[in-house]
Amino acid sequence: MLRTIGFDGDDTLWHNESLFALSQERFYELLRPYIDGALTAERLFAAEMRNLRLFGYGVKSFMLSMIETAIEVSEGRVTAAEIQTILDIGKGLLDHPVELLDGVRETITALDGRYELLLITKGDLFHQESRIAGSGLGEFFDGIEIVSEKDPATYERILRRRGIPPESFMMVGNSVKSDVLPVIALGARAVHIPYHITWQHEVVATDEAQRAGYWELATIAELVPKLNELVSEESVVGSP
Amino acid sequence: MLRTIGFDGDDTLWHNESLFALSQERFYELLRPYIDGALTAERLFAAEMRNLRLFGYGVKSFMLSMIETAIEVSEGRVTAAEIQTILDIGKGLLDHPVELLDGVRETITALDGRYELLLITKGDLFHQESRIAGSGLGEFFDGIEIVSEKDPATYERILRRRGIPPESFMMVGNSVKSDVLPVIALGARAVHIPYHITWQHEVVATDEAQRAGYWELATIAELVPKLNELVSEESVVGSP
Repeated sequence: MLRTIGFDGDDTLWHNESLFALSQERFYELLRPYIDGALTAERLFAAEMRNLRLFGYGVKSFMLSMIETAIEVSEGRVTAAEIQTILDIGKGLLDHPVELLDGVRETITALDGRYELLLITKGDLFHQESRIAGSGLGEFFDGIEIVSEKDPATYERILRRRGIPPESFMMVGNSVKSDVLPVIALGARAVHIPYHITWQHEVVATDEAQRAGYWELATIAELVPKLNELVSEESVVGSP
Repeated sequence: MLRTIGFDGDDTLWHNESLFALSQERFYELLRPYIDGALTAERLFAAEMRNLRLFGYGVKSFMLSMIETAIEVSEGRVTAAEIQTILDIGKGLLDHPVELLDGVRETITALDGRYELLLITKGDLFHQESRIAGSGLGEFFDGIEIVSEKDPATYERILRRRGIPPESFMMVGNSVKSDVLPVIALGARAVHIPYHITWQHEVVATDEAQRAGYWELATIAELVPKLNELVSEESVVGSP
């Protein structure tokens, strides 16, 4: 029986990738005197992947990779004023008010008390804490886990530490790579709710068999009705 | 009775501030064509404090504040090559092997099994996890807490969540501000082991009464003998 539901934060509860995309557009525009935007995008992604081992995820890592890319694609001609603009773009992202996705507040409040609710989010500790505080949703979660990577080992550790059997756990998130596949690998359930933009690093190919192993919903507003169906199905199965 | 001991990480178990200090020296040297080193130091600290609200602690925050300070003190004349040097200084810090302080390994292994051991460290999640992995000490800790701020509320939350009564807890660390005062405010015990450098932000004035409320040791090697004394004292008090 389902007892605990885990929610991802960025792009599941609140907007994130759309803000990054706007920042990236400003960055490409800034460097257009030096190089074509599409090439900048490619070089920025390469820098982010190269730096992931040292920097991890998050806005500060993104800022540092933008600065490094600006130096690289301008062949050392980028000006201090342009670097300052990059710092300002990043600070704008960090300081941006939290915007919940449609239906999030209603869904979380409807599930509060019916299930144990966890927030399991990846990224920068300090910034994720600010976002949780800014979301106004912190009080509804029985536990908050901010992790540096979302792989099966991470989920396994969280479930074990909290004494949650995988068969009673369901994860809800926008990333098949981070929120769905590692969770179903443990024998738990998962719900994929795509965001309209996915960061290139989070894109994975899935086959039909994998897609049969989890729910795919168009918006979070579909979650409560779908859980209600599940409850009535499981009670039918469980009745004598 | 003492049952659980919490250890700080940076400058308590492994060297940190000495590496930051070397990086800062390189940074002041880099900007000497523009401004005197002492003034750069002052402006860098001001930038770090101004950015703390958005960036939090850690090396990536330090890198971003160095870049901002370089633009500021050079009045926009700092070159892309100099900014790249700042990025390289920061990457060197992130990539630096973990160096344990003298006596740490012996102390931790001696206490393993006698007390529940926690690691409670402040800073960047990703980098602190790398350091813990690099320290080779992870396996000795019954719990690891990476936090964004060390105040009484943080310690209170950790102790409550783990069911640890304050009177059975002792925190060991190099910062009076972060490891000692918030812990004794909760009625738990604390041990201060100064590191030879303290970051300006962690410096606090203490009066004699406060200093009477915790142990001050010269090195971590004094901890086990001091705990042995405590055990024999408490068992004398406890005997009929």
